[in-house]
Amino acid sequence: MQERLKWLKGQLKSLKLDGMIVSNPVNIKYLTGLDAEGIFIIAPKENVFITDSRYIEEVTNIITIDQEIVINNQKDLINEDYEQFFERGSQVGFEENYVTYSDYADYMQRYKVELVETDNIIEKGRNVKDKEEIDYIKKACSITDKAFEHIIKFIEVGMTEKEIALEIERVMIENGADGLAFETIVASGVNSSKPHAVPSDKKIEDGDIVLFDMGAKYKGYCSDMSRTVFMSECNLKKEYNFVLDQQKKIVNQFKDGTNIKPIIKEAEDDFYENDYDVMHAFGHNLGLEVHESPALRSKIDEHLKANNVIAVEPGVYQIGKFGIRIEDTYLVTVNGCEQLTKSNKNLIIIR
Amino acid sequence: MQERLKWLKGQLKSLKLDGMIVSNPVNIKYLTGLDAEGIFIIAPKENVFITDSRYIEEVTNIITIDQEIVINNQKDLINEDYEQFFERGSQVGFEENYVTYSDYADYMQRYKVELVETDNIIEKGRNVKDKEEIDYIKKACSITDKAFEHIIKFIEVGMTEKEIALEIERVMIENGADGLAFETIVASGVNSSKPHAVPSDKKIEDGDIVLFDMGAKYKGYCSDMSRTVFMSECNLKKEYNFVLDQQKKIVNQFKDGTNIKPIIKEAEDDFYENDYDVMHAFGHNLGLEVHESPALRSKIDEHLKANNVIAVEPGVYQIGKFGIRIEDTYLVTVNGCEQLTKSNKNLIIIR
Repeated sequence: MQERLKWLKGQLKSLKLDGMIVSNPVNIKYLTGLDAEGIFIIAPKENVFITDSRYIEEVTNIITIDQEIVINNQKDLINEDYEQFFERGSQVGFEENYVTYSDYADYMQRYKVELVETDNIIEKGRNVKDKEEIDYIKKACSITDKAFEHIIKFIEVGMTEKEIALEIERVMIENGADGLAFETIVASGVNSSKPHAVPSDKKIEDGDIVLFDMGAKYKGYCSDMSRTVFMSECNLKKEYNFVLDQQKKIVNQFKDGTNIKPIIKEAEDDFYENDYDVMHAFGHNLGLEVHESPALRSKIDEHLKANNVIAVEPGVYQIGKFGIRIEDTYLVTVNGCEQLTKSNKNLIIIR
Repeated sequence: MQERLKWLKGQLKSLKLDGMIVSNPVNIKYLTGLDAEGIFIIAPKENVFITDSRYIEEVTNIITIDQEIVINNQKDLINEDYEQFFERGSQVGFEENYVTYSDYADYMQRYKVELVETDNIIEKGRNVKDKEEIDYIKKACSITDKAFEHIIKFIEVGMTEKEIALEIERVMIENGADGLAFETIVASGVNSSKPHAVPSDKKIEDGDIVLFDMGAKYKGYCSDMSRTVFMSECNLKKEYNFVLDQQKKIVNQFKDGTNIKPIIKEAEDDFYENDYDVMHAFGHNLGLEVHESPALRSKIDEHLKANNVIAVEPGVYQIGKFGIRIEDTYLVTVNGCEQLTKSNKNLIIIR
């Protein structure tokens, strides 16, 4: 943690900023380890975490002396306290992509500073994972694999999508997950054609296609995996293999330094040539959040870096008919990509 | 839905606004019934929902002709299209408490309008529930009651907090919930002293106090209830009864037209007189979101209205020792309050 805060202070210095007001709880957790509502202030004199009575106990227990973070309860602060964090008119960074317009107006008034946009500075730092973060993500991925291994034995005609989604969650928790990385998707039959389907009371039918999109959280870090299986027969082999091949084709080109843009452009062209719509991005970074920037889109002109963690998820959908999506979590390395979710992705027919 | 949109248009007219850009998905759902990412534009010529390929199928199926909402896929829109929704320089409302600073800057540039703060105009409308909304909340409350009835028979020494939380979720889903209103809290022993505890791998021990905070979602509407039970003995009868009495005392004074402020002030004074800290608000409105404004705090100078739905949740905590919270969901009526969660709140000793 101290390393991260030190790194950020270096960044702020090179941007000629006198400090930063950090409001996004995910960024606060990244910088401090704290999982509590509040505002984290990096000021020239001191670092201050302002929270409320609900969190004081936890926060006080977690913070170490080395971290040099002063904890304040907001109910003890008066207007003058806020004005004393920074000199009047200082240039102070803020998170323009997180802070609402009204909080922005409020900060200006309260801290008497000039607020400066920071262009996702902390998120960009979060994009390159350290060893501990990668270990947590690997664990979240292995929990997800265990849940998938279980669920393809568990699933039966007549069960509802909701029942199956709950069973996935149960097995993840049983295997040590903190919770879900996101609401599990179990979408069967025509429901699979909605990329953001929500598990319903629809029962799994003989002959259904079933799309799973699932991820665990471990020590706050996410995994993300999708699989599409068939209950009894598969008349969509061509489509399935197209999706799988696209995933392989993209991933095989990814490594430290790769420009995302031309690779995703090529994938999109492949889709259009085969008369498939591009319904969503081909993937995204992940970590403390399941969707981190940048997404894998042809308009994103960004280069991969070693220790990025990305989900690659091509999908083919025919509205009102079916959807097939295959997704895995990968670690970008100097020479390529390491696949972290390892579940079988050959075409699975349940019985 | 048409009624709600008509109502909002009347409000905008009286504020002399030429339209509104609605970005908060909960407000979009309230106005249109749509449960999809996108932006809803109320313009003089037409109402437009701008979404992306992931949601086009669902959205097109849900919208009726009567609703007079044009659906646009954002990938088909060019800059000029955005400029044509409003006349250049029009006064257009936006949600300053939801929209980020960078989206605000982006809207200004994109729509070429003057953005005007709307002070939670839609949220204020949402605060007064209609019959259908109340029915959904009642159903969510009765699902919560069923889960609690089950869980006090299910809970045993040796089970983990996580296991119990999952069982609550399972029973809610089994009884027709769409999902959870929020992450269930099961906090045992000293964990109960954290108002926002997260279920852990801690096993329930003989003699533990166990605090549940739980709610279901039904057709998008939330319930919220807390109960505190004892595994074998209770040496906190005085504290338990204090919390229960405070809840009754507050609720007995609530009805259409009541000013929240003096009642909550009195409750706070009672707390301080008895040497208890006030660790959080005494409650909050709820509906499509589990926390809706206003909260029940002594600094909030607002009056209740008939058909507000509120959770009242006094709690007493001793850091590192225990916490007791009792919470129910109530419907404010002309003459008083109707309690919608009906679970037993006499002191429960499990065995």
